[in-house]
Amino acid sequence: MNPSAAAAHPVRPPSTDLQVLAFDIFGTVVDWHGSIRAEVEALAPGVDGDAFANAWRAGYKPAMARVMSGELGWTRIDELHRLILDELLPRFGLAQLDEPARQHLNRAWHRLNPWPDSVPGLHRLKQRYTLCTLSNGNLGLLTDMAKRAGLPWDCILSAEVFRAYKPDPATYLGVARVFDVAPHQVMLVATHHDDLAAARQCGLRTAYIERPLEHGAAHPKDSTPQPGNELHCASLLALADQLGC
Amino acid sequence: MNPSAAAAHPVRPPSTDLQVLAFDIFGTVVDWHGSIRAEVEALAPGVDGDAFANAWRAGYKPAMARVMSGELGWTRIDELHRLILDELLPRFGLAQLDEPARQHLNRAWHRLNPWPDSVPGLHRLKQRYTLCTLSNGNLGLLTDMAKRAGLPWDCILSAEVFRAYKPDPATYLGVARVFDVAPHQVMLVATHHDDLAAARQCGLRTAYIERPLEHGAAHPKDSTPQPGNELHCASLLALADQLGC
Repeated sequence: MNPSAAAAHPVRPPSTDLQVLAFDIFGTVVDWHGSIRAEVEALAPGVDGDAFANAWRAGYKPAMARVMSGELGWTRIDELHRLILDELLPRFGLAQLDEPARQHLNRAWHRLNPWPDSVPGLHRLKQRYTLCTLSNGNLGLLTDMAKRAGLPWDCILSAEVFRAYKPDPATYLGVARVFDVAPHQVMLVATHHDDLAAARQCGLRTAYIERPLEHGAAHPKDSTPQPGNELHCASLLALADQLGC
Repeated sequence: MNPSAAAAHPVRPPSTDLQVLAFDIFGTVVDWHGSIRAEVEALAPGVDGDAFANAWRAGYKPAMARVMSGELGWTRIDELHRLILDELLPRFGLAQLDEPARQHLNRAWHRLNPWPDSVPGLHRLKQRYTLCTLSNGNLGLLTDMAKRAGLPWDCILSAEVFRAYKPDPATYLGVARVFDVAPHQVMLVATHHDDLAAARQCGLRTAYIERPLEHGAAHPKDSTPQPGNELHCASLLALADQLGC
């Protein structure tokens, strides 16, 4: 642990150079675990929603890896979520779920709730910076989510635009290209160190957001500051404070 | 002229089936002519801003045709605008304009002003429908424009996402695919009959918006209703009326 990074997170003067904040979504801006757990438990009382949510999410990286290796053609997250769901249901005693119920449950990822600080934090940050998503979620999913939750994006960017999933450099560099700025004028905001490290490799600036309950209260996540990140924030409101918004 | 289409544009019950409104931007939502004219005349007093704006815009379709024919590789509108501008300046006695001034003027397309009804009309429509852009303008241009003008898009879609310019079917069908709906659940809103006709060919519904001053007060545009369009509206507020928003 880097003691200076762990210090009191002083307010830094906003960089006049920074123009775009690109946000990871699942876990960083919205609470996928709590939202999926609640939907599963409402649909099937008695099922372990905590385990179900984490198992569904755990299938996500292997499914993307099948796309990026070429084993699967380009596939959107909606379809990957459905592939994982269909494997998962029998393991939780839900093999009998019919097609409309499966479709509805799969779209729970379009209905994820924001963390309490997300909407007010984004409104403050939007006054000074261009805010975009940079998510592996597809455009339709991210649009539905933003409309329902009131997330005030200036632009929704996705793996679907770049035809590559994070951590492929095409995604991080793609944001800079879309806005015609240098990579160091873009900051990735995320709660995942692997995502942030890949962005840094491409020359982006990085802000880590603590989301200790991302995987549920029973599975607290280590949120210790790591030295590579320029900013380390307890919430998006803290990010706005640190950027002087 | 079709007499029934020219009648009093009665309020139609909103279709429960319609989900997405996709908007053409240049001319339909923003006043490119008035905005470009004002910027040119401010930069170079004495230059005929009306003629300059129309000449710049007239270079746009031929430039896109060079991309779609394969003569040019994929090129964004920002770059096409700049190619046209560099040809245009000497014709208007502005060959001496330096590089920073050219860059600034080229980005005038990011600063176009909305028609007076656009922002209030979109806010009403957004309460019921998903609103996206479907423009040949690039994502960065459309994002800058929306942020400056307060255009409340749910999602910014562009030729840049589909790597094809309107009227290529990939653009119209691409909107339906992004939102996972059938083509008839998308309505294209535009002030250009060729754009609307191409969308209709793909199964989209269409709404024509009258913008008689699109090319400037000296060049009024025929806004006679044409029978192919489902809706014919004097403004985006009238569109909201007709859709019951």
